[in-house]
Amino acid sequence: STSGGKPKPPPVTRYNLNNVTISPSPVENRENVLILTPMARFYQQYWDNLMRLTYPHELITLGFILPKTKEGNAATTELQKQIAKTQKSSPERDRFKSIIILRQDFEPPIPSQDEGERHKMQNQKGRRAAMAKARNSLLFTTLGPATSWVLWLDADIIETPPTLIQDLALHDKPLVAPNCFQRFYNAEKKAMDERPYDFNNWQDSPTAQELAAKMGPDDILLEGYADMATYRALMAYMQGEDDDQNMEVPLDGVGGTALLVKADVHRDGAMFPAFPFYHLIETEGFARMAKRLGWQATGLPNYKVYHYNE
Amino acid sequence: STSGGKPKPPPVTRYNLNNVTISPSPVENRENVLILTPMARFYQQYWDNLMRLTYPHELITLGFILPKTKEGNAATTELQKQIAKTQKSSPERDRFKSIIILRQDFEPPIPSQDEGERHKMQNQKGRRAAMAKARNSLLFTTLGPATSWVLWLDADIIETPPTLIQDLALHDKPLVAPNCFQRFYNAEKKAMDERPYDFNNWQDSPTAQELAAKMGPDDILLEGYADMATYRALMAYMQGEDDDQNMEVPLDGVGGTALLVKADVHRDGAMFPAFPFYHLIETEGFARMAKRLGWQATGLPNYKVYHYNE
Ligand SMILES: Nc1nc2c(ncn2[C@@H]2O[C@H](COP(=O)(O)OP(=O)(O)O)[C@@H](O)[C@H]2O)c(=O)[nH]1
Ligand SMILES: Nc1nc2c(ncn2[C@@H]2O[C@H](COP(=O)(O)OP(=O)(O)O)[C@@H](O)[C@H]2O)c(=O)[nH]1
Ligand SMILES: [Mn+2]
Ligand SMILES: [Mn+2]
Repeated sequence: STSGGKPKPPPVTRYNLNNVTISPSPVENRENVLILTPMARFYQQYWDNLMRLTYPHELITLGFILPKTKEGNAATTELQKQIAKTQKSSPERDRFKSIIILRQDFEPPIPSQDEGERHKMQNQKGRRAAMAKARNSLLFTTLGPATSWVLWLDADIIETPPTLIQDLALHDKPLVAPNCFQRFYNAEKKAMDERPYDFNNWQDSPTAQELAAKMGPDDILLEGYADMATYRALMAYMQGEDDDQNMEVPLDGVGGTALLVKADVHRDGAMFPAFPFYHLIETEGFARMAKRLGWQATGLPNYKVYHYNE
Repeated sequence: STSGGKPKPPPVTRYNLNNVTISPSPVENRENVLILTPMARFYQQYWDNLMRLTYPHELITLGFILPKTKEGNAATTELQKQIAKTQKSSPERDRFKSIIILRQDFEPPIPSQDEGERHKMQNQKGRRAAMAKARNSLLFTTLGPATSWVLWLDADIIETPPTLIQDLALHDKPLVAPNCFQRFYNAEKKAMDERPYDFNNWQDSPTAQELAAKMGPDDILLEGYADMATYRALMAYMQGEDDDQNMEVPLDGVGGTALLVKADVHRDGAMFPAFPFYHLIETEGFARMAKRLGWQATGLPNYKVYHYNE
């Protein structure tokens, strides 16, 4: 710790958590946003969309966690290439405040990342427990005392409004989730179309609660599987006719594709349970835990973001 | 972000969590230790004991969280005085790697810090929920990707072996708790004596499990209250005749007075529940959550640290 023979006094930093505002006007209040992305594959459209976000980049810290697989190595290489370009050669206004890249230290439970394989019901518990740990590792090591907001954004979210952060923050909710759709070619209509993608944003149902009550302590409820009909109200299907972008609905479960969280929710201890928590796991368990801590999740059925179509 | 007109490339850091060792030889492996202390009062003996720790200070980061009360303000002033002395005027080997001081942004639930008041049973749930949130705020904002160990050390622990960190790490356990005692003047014996202090280090009992099974979902079990006899086996009373310093016992609940935790336990998501978790809260709930994630707590009945005597 000497430089040029002169001992350098080590850093002491003091933070008053009261002075970190978390407001509906985050740009005006210069609030720091942490964007967290677990990444198994790199998509150029994800990066391009991220670059187009109009929230001041100098207030944004990016955090990534990538698995130690062949795919994860390839994604890391591509990610680092884009980061180098942005942070070194792009105009200053494009550059982010700081970027942290973590490589996971545990093996992913299923080797293949193909959609068919990863959505198989019997693979879900192990896979989502591993995802929960990846999200927690990322969260626990990147959240700082000066962070106001955490935006969870999956690596395959390739299209959002450029004002995503400002728009979501304006709702001034502890957790707020846009509706995640997917564009596809509709062969019948012979035209591009869109369909709901993320089924983890839901409102609880009596059926789901009865199912849970009959379960063993280690069983989990899953959404979107025909042989486990929960009759929960899915935000995916709440898209309104009137198309009011600001329409809000309360949610009991959330997904992680895109989710803005007030940093205080995480600082109180809300994380992604890798174990069954009220028979829920990962992002859905996170919503339950946040609620347990007094923080209610909100969904925006008509505010859309788009998932990659494999 | 310009200095002298020349744009400075913003920081990009890359961490491979696999390269962060967590070993029984932390000094040899240059492992980073984060010492976390929630502090309502400042005791000079706490600081003096901390300074005497022989673990290389340049590998130690200190994190404090203090309440926004009159007492908390006074403690902050005294703490900062000692920090300034150490980091600026002491020999380089005494200085810590870095120090973070947080001021809490929520009100403590009971105004008085007197022992009688804070140990009243009806005050425990709110008080320990607030402590859990304080610990989580501290943990979530100071843990880094390069941290190997977290030492939880209460601000009123005034005496430990100087080799505390090395001694505890040598056990190579995910969570390891020394036995917390208190020195006092024994009027009968007319001599200084010692007695057990921390009753949160325990092994579960059938009675406690039966009590829990009959409780409402939001009720919590507390240890050390006559009107709620749990018959748990308390580490406080396990101090052996043979006095083998290395004796290990498994624990189901832990206290926070002194506790060494492998950083991976926290990175997996283990935190201090501010809500009843299996009818446990705060540090005891933390042990339960760690276990849920596959990490077993260990106690050292004969390895002692000492709590201040008010
Ligand atoms: N770090 C890490 N990220 C992963 C892993 N598996 C998937 N991801 C990422 O986690 C997010 C959600 O996973 P994904 O497979 O897209 O979930 P789905 O869209 O619900 O099928 C995406 O950003 C993935 O790139 C993994 O094993 N480790
Ligand atoms: N940040 C913070 N620390 C606290 C608060 N109350 C107590 N502490 C600290 O938390 C630790 C445990 O509290 P203490 O009252 O000693 O618990 P006890 O020894 O079990 O009675 C000690 O280090 C206290 O200084 C609080 O409201 N906020
Ligand atoms: Mn996806
Ligand atoms: Mn104490």
